[in-house]
Amino acid sequence: MAPLITFLTDFGIQDGYVAAMKGVVLGIVPEARLVDVTHLIPPQDIRWGSYILKSCYAEFPPGTIHLVVVDPGVGTDRRAIAVRTPRYVLVGPDNGLFSYVLTEEPSAEARLLENAFLFRHTISSTFHGRDIFAPVAAHLAAGTPFDTLGPIVNPVVSPWVRPTFAATNLDGEVLGIDHFGNIVTNIQRKHLADWAQQSDFEIFLENQKIPVFASTYADVPTGYPLALWGSSNHLEISVNQGNAAAFYGTRPGRRVRLMRRV
Amino acid sequence: MAPLITFLTDFGIQDGYVAAMKGVVLGIVPEARLVDVTHLIPPQDIRWGSYILKSCYAEFPPGTIHLVVVDPGVGTDRRAIAVRTPRYVLVGPDNGLFSYVLTEEPSAEARLLENAFLFRHTISSTFHGRDIFAPVAAHLAAGTPFDTLGPIVNPVVSPWVRPTFAATNLDGEVLGIDHFGNIVTNIQRKHLADWAQQSDFEIFLENQKIPVFASTYADVPTGYPLALWGSSNHLEISVNQGNAAAFYGTRPGRRVRLMRRV
Amino acid sequence: MAPLITFLTDFGIQDGYVAAMKGVVLGIVPEARLVDVTHLIPPQDIRWGSYILKSCYAEFPPGTIHLVVVDPGVGTDRRAIAVRTPRYVLVGPDNGLFSYVLTEEPSAEARLLENAFLFRHTISSTFHGRDIFAPVAAHLAAGTPFDTLGPIVNPVVSPWVRPTFAATNLDGEVLGIDHFGNIVTNIQRKHLADWAQQSDFEIFLENQKIPVFASTYADVPTGYPLALWGSSNHLEISVNQGNAAAFYGTRPGRRVRLMRRV
Repeated sequence: MAPLITFLTDFGIQDGYVAAMKGVVLGIVPEARLVDVTHLIPPQDIRWGSYILKSCYAEFPPGTIHLVVVDPGVGTDRRAIAVRTPRYVLVGPDNGLFSYVLTEEPSAEARLLENAFLFRHTISSTFHGRDIFAPVAAHLAAGTPFDTLGPIVNPVVSPWVRPTFAATNLDGEVLGIDHFGNIVTNIQRKHLADWAQQSDFEIFLENQKIPVFASTYADVPTGYPLALWGSSNHLEISVNQGNAAAFYGTRPGRRVRLMRRV
Repeated sequence: MAPLITFLTDFGIQDGYVAAMKGVVLGIVPEARLVDVTHLIPPQDIRWGSYILKSCYAEFPPGTIHLVVVDPGVGTDRRAIAVRTPRYVLVGPDNGLFSYVLTEEPSAEARLLENAFLFRHTISSTFHGRDIFAPVAAHLAAGTPFDTLGPIVNPVVSPWVRPTFAATNLDGEVLGIDHFGNIVTNIQRKHLADWAQQSDFEIFLENQKIPVFASTYADVPTGYPLALWGSSNHLEISVNQGNAAAFYGTRPGRRVRLMRRV
Repeated sequence: MAPLITFLTDFGIQDGYVAAMKGVVLGIVPEARLVDVTHLIPPQDIRWGSYILKSCYAEFPPGTIHLVVVDPGVGTDRRAIAVRTPRYVLVGPDNGLFSYVLTEEPSAEARLLENAFLFRHTISSTFHGRDIFAPVAAHLAAGTPFDTLGPIVNPVVSPWVRPTFAATNLDGEVLGIDHFGNIVTNIQRKHLADWAQQSDFEIFLENQKIPVFASTYADVPTGYPLALWGSSNHLEISVNQGNAAAFYGTRPGRRVRLMRRV
């Protein structure tokens, strides 16, 4: 099959930025199939970008190349990298964007993007998505070997990938708010395995107790709040057919606490 | 040609939900061509989703599979179905989303999605788009016969597909508001055939009379309102180079009345 | 390779308009590869549409067909055209949308879309994107010769493609605001070649002086404004990790002046 490249950025969809990247890619590997993940990561929100990548990258067929650009440090000396896992290659800035993937994939290898033969003919100081990341992804899709990119590096992994465990409580945070207003946290189902029985705890968003922990929206009446395991196995706070972020007036970074029942 | 699958949802475009569905599809049928209709149906607005589907599905080549997910009842016992018309197959929840297509296509046959071999390996309680509808659409695109999905069912058809006829008036409603602020109603050009001559009536949006019934925006000065047959042959209320929804302060569900001139 | 067609419109992405165009295209040339530039040009903003097209069209491989529809005059007697450059064909209304491309490409030839055999079977008065421009672009992609479209015409070129030069000042204007709040002007790097040394001038947005002219965002502290050459070599006014349009409270059409230092 033709190579498959996905795009995940904070570039928005109102300008020509995404199209410029796609034009560059198709100029190098015309047969590539291109799929947008999203371009509406909130500007410079690396944490949410990392989570959104985690929520979908592994659904794609093996060999897919994921191009991921949320890049507040463009034009500074932050590093540009590619990450290879057993099934995928990911390309983007080394600013924590790959924190979740790297945590999921302990065997991943990262390389510095140093081989300038793979870059665009001209490199701007503000748009490395078009000038570095897109052409590198395209060359990889066209068969350029991964180890010709540059030397192996240790990529950045940010602390929000893991909540804080204690005897009586497990403290996490709000990663972001999805389209429906669901509040997505960094507490994953697997984090509970050694810490508590399935429902042997209470859930607090800052100082507000979430009244119900259930398995689907319809377990509470329309308009009522609940917590549940979302489709990516992260703890989410939702309102049945409503908007939990508006209901609770929360925002990214707020503390979420599981407290063991005594 | 490679199979063609379209996507119409209320999932938004800021998260990884749509990408997860596309990854699942491409894992099953890698050669598929994917086209987005929209992912910005207002959350849970089945009526507008049904209309948007009607407004474009028949423009696609025969054999296209339309994946349609506006699913407020996910996780409840609402049925999941596929609908086959002479030219297309459509997949989604049985909640009225296919009302317009079923009305347009009297020979359509619907089947319950019961064959769990066609579903994703794990099924969440909140994301049947990824776990049921996308893989079923992909398997159909890959050649799985329609009648292996499950038994024939009678799908839901909602009442808003048809206005109410009376001797002196024809009562419809606002289906929704498009990107330009045009007010789209459920009154179709064909509904008038037996009821009135082309302009032998007056048009009211609730109690406001629409002053002009014309054939294109430029038939009135810039900023002036008019009614016309939109590009899908539904009655629309518009403002030339302006926003009719803001002009009239209306919203979906409001009554639209044609009153015969006496 | 299969033909490549890009889409740039002000149709929005919440309705079925874009999908209807794509369905029409795929009905004529099923193997076409389709890439969205954007559908969020502000309604009827021809100037910004022209700039966005300029910002990315030349990144695509030779042979790409660019379908461009920002069309406030739909249903009037404004002309429909196609433009052929040495590498591309562009299709859309003749209202100034191609001003930038035509200025970049002096050898371009334009033809009137007069050959109705290439149109959709039915032509609405409000949606020529679906009924005229999309099918013409598709037929061109399928091999229909350019000169069968209709007679050669002189297309509209609007005055905003070129700032005003004077001895002491160079006067341009704000073309639009990008997703990040960067203020994009119509003053290009090449305009300065004969007028001033690289930094031999001061920059004013209306009567506000931009304090720094630098080469990348990080040349000023977070939250500080600067001017720089953007990735399309237009003068942009930005705020490092912030929103310049909000910072300066500006909008499209406002005057931008470079004043020679004395």
